Amino acid sequence: MNKIKIGILGATGIVGTNYIKLLQGHPWFQIVDVAASPRSAGKTYEEAVKAKWHMSIPIPEDLKGKIVRDVQDYDSIPHDLSFVFSAIVMPTKDQIKEVEFKYAELGIPVISNNSAHRWTPDVPMIIGEINHDHVNLIPLQQKNRGYDKGFIAVKPNCSLQSYLTPIYALEEAGYKIDKLIITTLQAVSGAGYPGVPSLDVIDNIVPYIGGEEEKTEKEPTKILGKVGEDGIILNETIQISSTCTRVPVTDGHTASVNMKFKDRVPSEDEIIKIWNEFKSEPQNLNLPYAPTQPIIYLDNIDRPQPKKDRDNDKGMAVTVGRLRKDNVFDYKFVSLSHNTVRGAAGGSILTAELLKAKNFIK
Amino acid sequence: MNKIKIGILGATGIVGTNYIKLLQGHPWFQIVDVAASPRSAGKTYEEAVKAKWHMSIPIPEDLKGKIVRDVQDYDSIPHDLSFVFSAIVMPTKDQIKEVEFKYAELGIPVISNNSAHRWTPDVPMIIGEINHDHVNLIPLQQKNRGYDKGFIAVKPNCSLQSYLTPIYALEEAGYKIDKLIITTLQAVSGAGYPGVPSLDVIDNIVPYIGGEEEKTEKEPTKILGKVGEDGIILNETIQISSTCTRVPVTDGHTASVNMKFKDRVPSEDEIIKIWNEFKSEPQNLNLPYAPTQPIIYLDNIDRPQPKKDRDNDKGMAVTVGRLRKDNVFDYKFVSLSHNTVRGAAGGSILTAELLKAKNFIK
Amino acid sequence: MNKIKIGILGATGIVGTNYIKLLQGHPWFQIVDVAASPRSAGKTYEEAVKAKWHMSIPIPEDLKGKIVRDVQDYDSIPHDLSFVFSAIVMPTKDQIKEVEFKYAELGIPVISNNSAHRWTPDVPMIIGEINHDHVNLIPLQQKNRGYDKGFIAVKPNCSLQSYLTPIYALEEAGYKIDKLIITTLQAVSGAGYPGVPSLDVIDNIVPYIGGEEEKTEKEPTKILGKVGEDGIILNETIQISSTCTRVPVTDGHTASVNMKFKDRVPSEDEIIKIWNEFKSEPQNLNLPYAPTQPIIYLDNIDRPQPKKDRDNDKGMAVTVGRLRKDNVFDYKFVSLSHNTVRGAAGGSILTAELLKAKNFIK
Amino acid sequence: MNKIKIGILGATGIVGTNYIKLLQGHPWFQIVDVAASPRSAGKTYEEAVKAKWHMSIPIPEDLKGKIVRDVQDYDSIPHDLSFVFSAIVMPTKDQIKEVEFKYAELGIPVISNNSAHRWTPDVPMIIGEINHDHVNLIPLQQKNRGYDKGFIAVKPNCSLQSYLTPIYALEEAGYKIDKLIITTLQAVSGAGYPGVPSLDVIDNIVPYIGGEEEKTEKEPTKILGKVGEDGIILNETIQISSTCTRVPVTDGHTASVNMKFKDRVPSEDEIIKIWNEFKSEPQNLNLPYAPTQPIIYLDNIDRPQPKKDRDNDKGMAVTVGRLRKDNVFDYKFVSLSHNTVRGAAGGSILTAELLKAKNFIK
Repeated sequence: MNKIKIGILGATGIVGTNYIKLLQGHPWFQIVDVAASPRSAGKTYEEAVKAKWHMSIPIPEDLKGKIVRDVQDYDSIPHDLSFVFSAIVMPTKDQIKEVEFKYAELGIPVISNNSAHRWTPDVPMIIGEINHDHVNLIPLQQKNRGYDKGFIAVKPNCSLQSYLTPIYALEEAGYKIDKLIITTLQAVSGAGYPGVPSLDVIDNIVPYIGGEEEKTEKEPTKILGKVGEDGIILNETIQISSTCTRVPVTDGHTASVNMKFKDRVPSEDEIIKIWNEFKSEPQNLNLPYAPTQPIIYLDNIDRPQPKKDRDNDKGMAVTVGRLRKDNVFDYKFVSLSHNTVRGAAGGSILTAELLKAKNFIK
Repeated sequence: MNKIKIGILGATGIVGTNYIKLLQGHPWFQIVDVAASPRSAGKTYEEAVKAKWHMSIPIPEDLKGKIVRDVQDYDSIPHDLSFVFSAIVMPTKDQIKEVEFKYAELGIPVISNNSAHRWTPDVPMIIGEINHDHVNLIPLQQKNRGYDKGFIAVKPNCSLQSYLTPIYALEEAGYKIDKLIITTLQAVSGAGYPGVPSLDVIDNIVPYIGGEEEKTEKEPTKILGKVGEDGIILNETIQISSTCTRVPVTDGHTASVNMKFKDRVPSEDEIIKIWNEFKSEPQNLNLPYAPTQPIIYLDNIDRPQPKKDRDNDKGMAVTVGRLRKDNVFDYKFVSLSHNTVRGAAGGSILTAELLKAKNFIK
Repeated sequence: MNKIKIGILGATGIVGTNYIKLLQGHPWFQIVDVAASPRSAGKTYEEAVKAKWHMSIPIPEDLKGKIVRDVQDYDSIPHDLSFVFSAIVMPTKDQIKEVEFKYAELGIPVISNNSAHRWTPDVPMIIGEINHDHVNLIPLQQKNRGYDKGFIAVKPNCSLQSYLTPIYALEEAGYKIDKLIITTLQAVSGAGYPGVPSLDVIDNIVPYIGGEEEKTEKEPTKILGKVGEDGIILNETIQISSTCTRVPVTDGHTASVNMKFKDRVPSEDEIIKIWNEFKSEPQNLNLPYAPTQPIIYLDNIDRPQPKKDRDNDKGMAVTVGRLRKDNVFDYKFVSLSHNTVRGAAGGSILTAELLKAKNFIK
Repeated sequence: MNKIKIGILGATGIVGTNYIKLLQGHPWFQIVDVAASPRSAGKTYEEAVKAKWHMSIPIPEDLKGKIVRDVQDYDSIPHDLSFVFSAIVMPTKDQIKEVEFKYAELGIPVISNNSAHRWTPDVPMIIGEINHDHVNLIPLQQKNRGYDKGFIAVKPNCSLQSYLTPIYALEEAGYKIDKLIITTLQAVSGAGYPGVPSLDVIDNIVPYIGGEEEKTEKEPTKILGKVGEDGIILNETIQISSTCTRVPVTDGHTASVNMKFKDRVPSEDEIIKIWNEFKSEPQNLNLPYAPTQPIIYLDNIDRPQPKKDRDNDKGMAVTVGRLRKDNVFDYKFVSLSHNTVRGAAGGSILTAELLKAKNFIK
């Protein structure tokens, strides 16, 4: 089978390089184009990225000699490119939006890691296991904007990905959630590179991450929403309060969650069964990057832990533990997901696979 | 002025050595007796403690040559000892209880860091700024048990000390709390030495601390209770739910707190004013170890932080920040206290000063 | 092909569990026996190990139900066992020696991670790429001790494995080393679990590791020695001085090395060429666990780094960098190896493969 | 006594704020002027520094309202300023040199933390305990440049301060050093703020610090040199080789040192005695910031350690341990100094005190 040819926008940054790492050996997709800022353009990929390559694998041999393209040089886009992953970094969200729109307009689907388009009404914000049906927003987007094959799809913030799938699994099983109070303990890789200064997290934690609490409280309303005629109809039935903290962990966001159900309250055993048995479209479609078991419940008293559980099922599973009765709400639990895999590049790769399986990408 | 002569039970352990460090230069108290297990007894204090001395100051010169006493050799207790701080470590709580009872029976007040006696009904569990009046339980204890001058007083768990004083300050100002949901990020020194293995907290957090959640939920009912005729009348008006996690921080427990008031809800400004102006008996009595301002509210967006705020007012102040409206409850905030100072030895020293000022210690 | 049946002695400890992790999917060897102390004996492996399982993979399904054997119950050794990896932990070296001798006597080859037998004269201490010919000491050992098929082989200390292979490669290329001055920065996993207390390595380093400096200075004399008629003839031509420190890193020992040649001094380019092209018996024999390139030289200015380079070639390669002229000696460089893979279980697996390829194991 | 009025150039950066912290309560000096870049100029000090204040004490009350001066607005220099500490950060060394020259020309002595002037031949680079007599270079500098009261004095790199004083103490006692091989384990605060990214030092070390090895090898030749008629006569009698690494420690540089004497080799006891008894001009003059005992030898097997020893004698003492025979050279040892106190602001304050005591500052 010929692989689908894809590009990485922002290929020299931390997110871009992470895409490149995770896509090594991908059965469907092959990176044929690396684009970045004018500063890197014209250099070989190796020259451009060498000093900034922080991945645990070496720069892939087949990319080393590739000439980096200026991300805004639209004439130079290879004509056989099926789609791009966007990890571009620009001074303003409007600039990012504009570049991503331009690719879509030129017929190149954009699957973006950026937050710029998360609240663009006709752009779906997808977690494969939750709102895979939001891909059905794409025809509306294409119609609205006069796009032919191009479109934009995005992924939500990494901090909510540790708890939203477990919450969704319960909702889907018929147990409606009323309130959530959450405190996250987030890894430093969430801030990119150089990101969090070491002086801030050696023997310390920082109880604040700019913009993160708002995102974790608001984005679920779109993800859990329904595709309507004019865009996503927000779902505001769950009240969410979140406190986001930064801890000295490289990868893996942990969440401490208290939850209150609306009416019917499942037993502990039911909840664990629902989580462990939860499967969704990515599993049904056997997508290559889909975790076999999207939610893994561990009954060890002191789990999940970032170092031990972030890589479960190639970093794509959410690991949950410590489900117990709550004095104030109904239950509390702890959940974990790998922020730069499940919560970023890996999640986007899964979305691309979903879009391919659904024929939005060819 | 002649200083009061005191002893340290368990003087070679991590808590005992911390007492010794914090008591250097104390204006009222002078350590004249160091007691420990039979293994250390008979050695000089320097010999006994050298391999286990983890304090940031050297072993005090005046203690180096002192012969360590067997903590259970009751005949050898110096007759001029006013009281002891207890930091003994024994296999069971019952053994600890027995030793502490014995000292009290022999006329030696015991101010204990241990949890053994926290739920003994006639033993007060004191945070100087909150329930200083619980010292009035001592005459009942002495009467019950036939003690003359001796008695036992204890301090509560370190994990609740970052938020209970701010909560109490609001209650005392007339704003009654209904519910609290708390997630703590606790320092490794809370587990003593050797304590938490480094493999567990390098690039990791552990979302579980044995017994800690139960203590943080239950101990406030006693601390906030009233002295009744037969002991403390528990105050169970606040529902508390707590999740306790261990993070890679040496000292300083942080708490993320969501709070709901019963009826009247103060404004943000009122809350901050109440906290910053809060003073109590230790401040009124000008006790040497009392923080000048027991609750310090910081308006920097990313504070409190353990490394920057744990030492505020010699480690005795609680530092609070990030007060903001809560989508689910009324408010949320982050608070911090130094677990081995305010939450352990420093808190006990303050209690001893209070007991001295109130003439329970002579 | 039927796999060779093997056992793990000390299967519930940190080293034993690491063997189990690394042997998953091994093409030649299959674990059929797990032995441990009497405390674990009789339990299923899952019961025995659950609270101590610190690996990043779950307990393998095929081992969960296996009944743990008492390591000293020699009658219960399965008769079809080809050999054992020993990771037993006992109070004294003599006890370890005795158990390992007993297995050898009973016809079971023992490949041991322990230091107990490192200086037993007729026991080879092997690094596959350096002294693979030391397997020829085995017939002498068997003759000396009246063993039939059994024997003992050991691996050296992990701290020397980052620099001894690069040094050996130069010696083998004809450049004789005169002096080495080394400072190591060693990972905490080298001390096992619980091992190094977190209070010792959060915001701290410890410039001392008991016994380690002596081992790194003395063991090379045996490894670089020759098989003589009565055992290994030590090679004392290199003077080595070593300072060993503990740093807050989970895995990966780094060494800062200054080296002086005896007479001929190669150029920088020659050294790098020698290292990058170095191959030895494990590569010639295509052993499954052999690294393709045993020494990887990186020309990035700030490498090797533990987090980025420890897993090179499944943790079996030594990564070297920063080769440069030395004001005092001839050259200095920095080298790194994964202490629990290359320096422990992985190295021993490679030795077992070598012994199999050489027909000492059947 | 009226305090001497001083200014801080670069008062809003990490080094500048550290000066402000360390000068609180200084018996001789009072900060009356804070200068910074045009971006901060005109703001109150509190406004300018608030978001960048990383000290463990709050912004001093008396500085909060002070208006920050543009460091290059030379007309605005208060006329009663005795001298300035310079911690200015500028794009090039030449720009820094120019500003510092200008202050000197205007009659304001400059005691600088910057490396810009370290190799200006008539500028002394001072460690109070070693080359206090280099202050005698100042008249030459003033004559050369036509300065009246102004001059420039600098401090050397922080990384050499842990071992150079112990080495000097031995030299001064008549034992001449021939060769030194050093590996440093340096704290992240040496790189300022934001400085080292947390992703580089969580579960990692970086075996390279740009420019540092050259400085540690070369600066000692000036510090140990003699004041000649045309400047410092370099002392190149000691061969030094250094490898500098970055470790996950906030403060405190550790050095592993191997040393070879030229001819006479003292005994271990003599060395320890020389170190413990070493005193120099700052001690003789009773300077306020001078450590009582500049070199503290600890006989605990695992010391010095950054967290436990960096604050010895208010961070101004060098702590040494692990002196032992060396297989290759004569001895090896481990030494430690606080890089942002002894190695930076604290060292400069001591130099200022020395200059005051010697009447170069009035």
